[in-house]
Amino acid sequence: MTSTTLTNIDLESRVHAAHPDQLRLWLRLLTCTQLIEKRVRLGLRLEFDTTLPRFDLMAQLEKSPSGLKMVDLSKRLMVSGGNITAITDQLVSEGWVQRVDVEGDRRSWKIQLTKAGKTYFNQMAKAHEIWILESFEGLSKKEIQTLHKLLAQVKHTALQQLIGPDTSTLTEAL
Amino acid sequence: MTSTTLTNIDLESRVHAAHPDQLRLWLRLLTCTQLIEKRVRLGLRLEFDTTLPRFDLMAQLEKSPSGLKMVDLSKRLMVSGGNITAITDQLVSEGWVQRVDVEGDRRSWKIQLTKAGKTYFNQMAKAHEIWILESFEGLSKKEIQTLHKLLAQVKHTALQQLIGPDTSTLTEAL
Repeated sequence: MTSTTLTNIDLESRVHAAHPDQLRLWLRLLTCTQLIEKRVRLGLRLEFDTTLPRFDLMAQLEKSPSGLKMVDLSKRLMVSGGNITAITDQLVSEGWVQRVDVEGDRRSWKIQLTKAGKTYFNQMAKAHEIWILESFEGLSKKEIQTLHKLLAQVKHTALQQLIGPDTSTLTEAL
Repeated sequence: MTSTTLTNIDLESRVHAAHPDQLRLWLRLLTCTQLIEKRVRLGLRLEFDTTLPRFDLMAQLEKSPSGLKMVDLSKRLMVSGGNITAITDQLVSEGWVQRVDVEGDRRSWKIQLTKAGKTYFNQMAKAHEIWILESFEGLSKKEIQTLHKLLAQVKHTALQQLIGPDTSTLTEAL
């Protein structure tokens, strides 16, 4: 890894001395998230020759064994419709995902994991879990609980900031 | 905001009961980061009619008053070269950024903020700081310190996971 890459990763290098603690905290939070996500992307690529959007799509299908319509899948993922169609086509051609008829609706279909897809996804999910465990192995059980609790407060406040008090404007903008 | 959007934002809804605490913690960390980033993107759009990549690019220029060569700017940002060129062209045509000659090198130029660009960026930076302060206003001063300290440990471990012990393979892959 070059020093340039490390500079990019460590966003805290952007903070000035005069900045408030909250800004430092935000950049540290962002750095942690990006480091772990990078670890996950790297693992998916090196160990499974796959990408995070493909993993996320399969994770959604794994949670819905009876299958999902494309429109519902699209709602559960945060990528655009075009990408989802392209990724689904890829996964179908590779045999991990299949299209199935929707009972009582001849014009509609769902997609679901194939048996091979389930096995493949379970392997990835296990590896993913290990990468995450490793990322937090510097923390004690108690520290994990404290961090979880403090982030609950951040999540609560950040959600309030995002959706309230005047939700009508934000709803349109989101 | 529709319930669908809220489901997307709250990634913790993806966690099964059997998952380890670290996985819950990871999804909470990811949720917090995405909520705050969404708040920032929304503010930039509604209040300044701009985007996060444009803000990030101007933030880099603000840190280098004498200007940056495109290659150096590119290294400091995490978007691809093509995007940086397109964004720079936009900002130049809007008068926020200008191209300047590099002393002693007639074939080269740097880009830097214009006077108007500096003023404009400072306004955005102030608003950005307020959005971040608001996102963390649910935490006491002591809780902010604790969170900062715990995340330092996460950052340290996650960085180790990413770059070591065999950095050679990872360097190529990153």
